[in-house]
Amino acid sequence: MRGRFITVEGTEGVGKSTNLEFIRQQLEAAGIEVVQTREPGGTPLSEDIRQQLLDHRHTGMSSDCELLLMFAARAEHLAKVIVPALEAGKWVLCDRFTDATYAYQGGGRGIDTSRISALENWVQGELRPDATLILDVPVEIGLARASQRGELDRFEREKEEFFNNVRNAYLSLAEQYPKRIHIIDAAPALEVVQSQLADVLKQIMEPNGD
Amino acid sequence: MRGRFITVEGTEGVGKSTNLEFIRQQLEAAGIEVVQTREPGGTPLSEDIRQQLLDHRHTGMSSDCELLLMFAARAEHLAKVIVPALEAGKWVLCDRFTDATYAYQGGGRGIDTSRISALENWVQGELRPDATLILDVPVEIGLARASQRGELDRFEREKEEFFNNVRNAYLSLAEQYPKRIHIIDAAPALEVVQSQLADVLKQIMEPNGD
Repeated sequence: MRGRFITVEGTEGVGKSTNLEFIRQQLEAAGIEVVQTREPGGTPLSEDIRQQLLDHRHTGMSSDCELLLMFAARAEHLAKVIVPALEAGKWVLCDRFTDATYAYQGGGRGIDTSRISALENWVQGELRPDATLILDVPVEIGLARASQRGELDRFEREKEEFFNNVRNAYLSLAEQYPKRIHIIDAAPALEVVQSQLADVLKQIMEPNGD
Repeated sequence: MRGRFITVEGTEGVGKSTNLEFIRQQLEAAGIEVVQTREPGGTPLSEDIRQQLLDHRHTGMSSDCELLLMFAARAEHLAKVIVPALEAGKWVLCDRFTDATYAYQGGGRGIDTSRISALENWVQGELRPDATLILDVPVEIGLARASQRGELDRFEREKEEFFNNVRNAYLSLAEQYPKRIHIIDAAPALEVVQSQLADVLKQIMEPNGD
């Protein structure tokens, strides 16, 4: 049986790393074989492309180039990691996917979403995540947490307004796809967040769940 | 007045470098300010992407990824070099452009040309070269010339059949766009080739020429 494709999304400092680890453990505890990966990245070539995207030297790159590099990394990731794993019956747990493109390049940089969806269809055909968990916190809390982690990369240097636009784009996506996308309130203490995650995962792991 | 966009195409060993230099000199002798550039490449970021495409490590990259990287480099090149130069009234002389994508990825790798034209329209909108010179030689002659230059890169290692498909795709493009594309027979001695080039350039430099 084909595996399920689970993506985890959110702005800076929402606790993605910690919670991805928790989600993987929950799935594995239920006997599911999990391939954990991330975007942009997930293959050696896609990680090279990730470095180009994050590289401060290229701060002035055109928004079209940024979007095409994102989808180039994604095409390679799908061909080499995600699709083979799903076809082998494994579940794929991915740190960010195309919703992040709508949120960051669409909401954040103001690229027309019809240009994003043209590339989404070109690269993915019919493939979409089976379930998406958006970890949500108010932007000022997220940025305060992220800044404690050390040097900020190119995306993290963006202004607070940018991140508000990203967050609002994520919330709009959740309204647009209420069956696929689950909003997790990631502001409270970790055990409260993980209790929400456990509830949603139980629902996802049900046969025909999402 | 907007400048004109001239592209030069051809398979390996057709003498592109020598003839590009000749074309530039001819245009400059006529008082035209020329920006000479190349694809994939032409900006620091696009040259990085070129390196990824040529890198032997990535021999197994998916064809979708290859195509998206090509167009990512092209989007940056257009935004930073080609369009600003044309708008400043300069002529742009470019070593390969989108016809090469149709020839190498379409003809050579067998990617559906409708997938290429979808990205061409996404990236370029209405922009197309004003004139294209295809330097044409039979594949066995071109490969013999190229192999004298030293180590072959990833594309040059491809089999002769691949290059025959590339050449045939170029010849089909010339049939499809007879007004824009000029085939130059690059098999004879250099002075014969350059005499053909001079004739075509004279035509291109006429007001409303192509």
